[in-house]
Amino acid sequence: MTVTSPRGFRASGVAAGLKPAGNPDVALVVNDGPDYTAAAVFTGNRVKAAPVLWSQQVLKGGVVRAVILNSGGANACTGSQGFRDTHATAEHTAAVLRNGTKAGAKPMMIGAGDVAVCSTGLIGELLPMDKLLPGVNAAAKALAGDGGPRAAEAIMTTDTVAKNAVVQRDGWTVGGIAKGAGMLAPALATMLVVITTDASADNETLDAALREATRLTFDRIDADGCMSTNDTVLLLASGASDRQPSLAELTAAVTEVCHDLAQQLIGDAEGATKHVAIEVAGAASEADAVQVGRTVARNNLVKTALFGNDPNWGRILAAVGTTSAAFEPDRVDVAVNGVWVCRGGAAAEDRSKVDLSGRDVTITVHLHEGELSATIWTTDLSHAYVHENSAYSS
Amino acid sequence: MTVTSPRGFRASGVAAGLKPAGNPDVALVVNDGPDYTAAAVFTGNRVKAAPVLWSQQVLKGGVVRAVILNSGGANACTGSQGFRDTHATAEHTAAVLRNGTKAGAKPMMIGAGDVAVCSTGLIGELLPMDKLLPGVNAAAKALAGDGGPRAAEAIMTTDTVAKNAVVQRDGWTVGGIAKGAGMLAPALATMLVVITTDASADNETLDAALREATRLTFDRIDADGCMSTNDTVLLLASGASDRQPSLAELTAAVTEVCHDLAQQLIGDAEGATKHVAIEVAGAASEADAVQVGRTVARNNLVKTALFGNDPNWGRILAAVGTTSAAFEPDRVDVAVNGVWVCRGGAAAEDRSKVDLSGRDVTITVHLHEGELSATIWTTDLSHAYVHENSAYSS
Repeated sequence: MTVTSPRGFRASGVAAGLKPAGNPDVALVVNDGPDYTAAAVFTGNRVKAAPVLWSQQVLKGGVVRAVILNSGGANACTGSQGFRDTHATAEHTAAVLRNGTKAGAKPMMIGAGDVAVCSTGLIGELLPMDKLLPGVNAAAKALAGDGGPRAAEAIMTTDTVAKNAVVQRDGWTVGGIAKGAGMLAPALATMLVVITTDASADNETLDAALREATRLTFDRIDADGCMSTNDTVLLLASGASDRQPSLAELTAAVTEVCHDLAQQLIGDAEGATKHVAIEVAGAASEADAVQVGRTVARNNLVKTALFGNDPNWGRILAAVGTTSAAFEPDRVDVAVNGVWVCRGGAAAEDRSKVDLSGRDVTITVHLHEGELSATIWTTDLSHAYVHENSAYSS
Repeated sequence: MTVTSPRGFRASGVAAGLKPAGNPDVALVVNDGPDYTAAAVFTGNRVKAAPVLWSQQVLKGGVVRAVILNSGGANACTGSQGFRDTHATAEHTAAVLRNGTKAGAKPMMIGAGDVAVCSTGLIGELLPMDKLLPGVNAAAKALAGDGGPRAAEAIMTTDTVAKNAVVQRDGWTVGGIAKGAGMLAPALATMLVVITTDASADNETLDAALREATRLTFDRIDADGCMSTNDTVLLLASGASDRQPSLAELTAAVTEVCHDLAQQLIGDAEGATKHVAIEVAGAASEADAVQVGRTVARNNLVKTALFGNDPNWGRILAAVGTTSAAFEPDRVDVAVNGVWVCRGGAAAEDRSKVDLSGRDVTITVHLHEGELSATIWTTDLSHAYVHENSAYSS
């Protein structure tokens, strides 16, 4: 059910004192092979945190043997000292793993360039390295074949639940962990995700599978339209199953895990009282459908209306009108939870028929321009969102 | 101090029963000439309300003799019936003014094609014409040379104060009224604005002056990133002063009135507890400066941080990173209320030095790429914003 479900992986999560409350805040995921192939997708934000800049370089090397993750600090906008700290963290992790983590354990052949680094937390402050590096030691000691859930717990920030997922195939498995509850926006949502598989696949295959999976899952959730500096999705393959699925098979399994984790992320988004699917149909292109869905998802007036259980389709149409998608205003239909409150750009079924009392909401926008479609998942905008994001720095 | 300050204009505001609470909801502004030149700027939203589609046609005719405005209903997304209702409102207004509004008053030479129409309120519902048309009669009867403030009052929706402005020049005057408190976003902010002048100017001069004025004022306020279906800014010239200012003089005066009204709009934005200026300096182009300013203004995490009196420059930098403006992450400086909390993309002065206790906030982002700059005005994102926009349909 997690990142250690596939064979060939160990993980851990420990409390190093980065979080004031003393909760777990350092996680380690190790690939014991025999393969060490990997792929990754990083934030599209041009302001990239030090660990993102570092991990991008690691991925170019083509081998990832370990991922060290911390919550309690993003190490973003921290200048050259921040990058040196990330480098030092990778060096330290490699050294600890190289020297063996337990009496009798086989030392790993690993250098800093094989260690991806992920950080999450407040932007703009240096990490307390005097706490982080001892935390790496502790995490290495705690590595276990069932340590995935503890790693998932250690990367939580404002998340209220840890996120784990797994998909079983015939003889091989894909598992994953994720964190992220705010700054969730496409390309990517603000998140750290580690996905593992015991399938055997080369870097190109992993890259193709991961890009397609994230395009359809993490890139289609949008809690607040805010893109993070630290987003990282890693896919590591150990080959321990000795199975070599086709690209299509691997893509399907990785997509399933990503979809599961993405829905857990949006379901736990800060302050959300609604889990909203915005289905855009009848689009001339998939890009049009995604643009319309994202624009509606980011519209604060739509989001506050949903919080107020108000099927305000006029605000939805006004949001659609700000896109460059192909559509005619007098041909658009809108349904809220299956009730077509707007047809041909004007009022249709009585809006009082719409039941918005539940948590799940589906908004359907039909553009009547073509055959393509996309779904964006989002949340409402609630008092609790404002409270969480005004009362606490993050 | 208002739309009737320039010579040659009468105005009125009456209660026609469109608003449930019985507040004034129909306004009329009449140009008594001798000139009837005009210019207008309309919403960039592709979903345009019926009155916008109508008024666009009126402006093509080059003559605007009257503007009839209503609150209590946007007449947007109302299909062909909505357009027929707008047409009927213009016809009725013209007929009433043609027949003379008072015993002994000089009848006007006016057709429906000389009457601009503006509406604001809930999207998606037809206007109650049985109330609106008698309201037009009453508004025509109430026309007065000092009626501007009553017109300003009658177009209020969630506005808490009426907005009037005036600029006096040597022998000529520009005045204006405005409404708008939510759905405020660039190009345009959600607003209805009527500006009048007794200067003499042809349509081309008025158009050039108004476009430059709105570009620098209404297009640079952004309360919630949501663009309306009904935005209209009208500029009417009576020529009654017999003065003919240069384009530069006229542009300066119209810009001054627009700036005054725009600041009143953002100052009264729904639920706002902060009045925020985002100054972007050192940009390679003005477009870059505007893009960065708007992106920061629309970022919910920045807006909630301001509500919480938190000078969270990391969120500002993360927002800048999502733009396509020319900048290097390690060269950006950010000041909040004059304290340079970020220099070269990393922490600088202590954020505890920033005093955010007041209503006015200035965020300065220096890109160090060029000499160009722009300021965007916005608000914070507060509990009250969520409350107003979730509890009431609009």
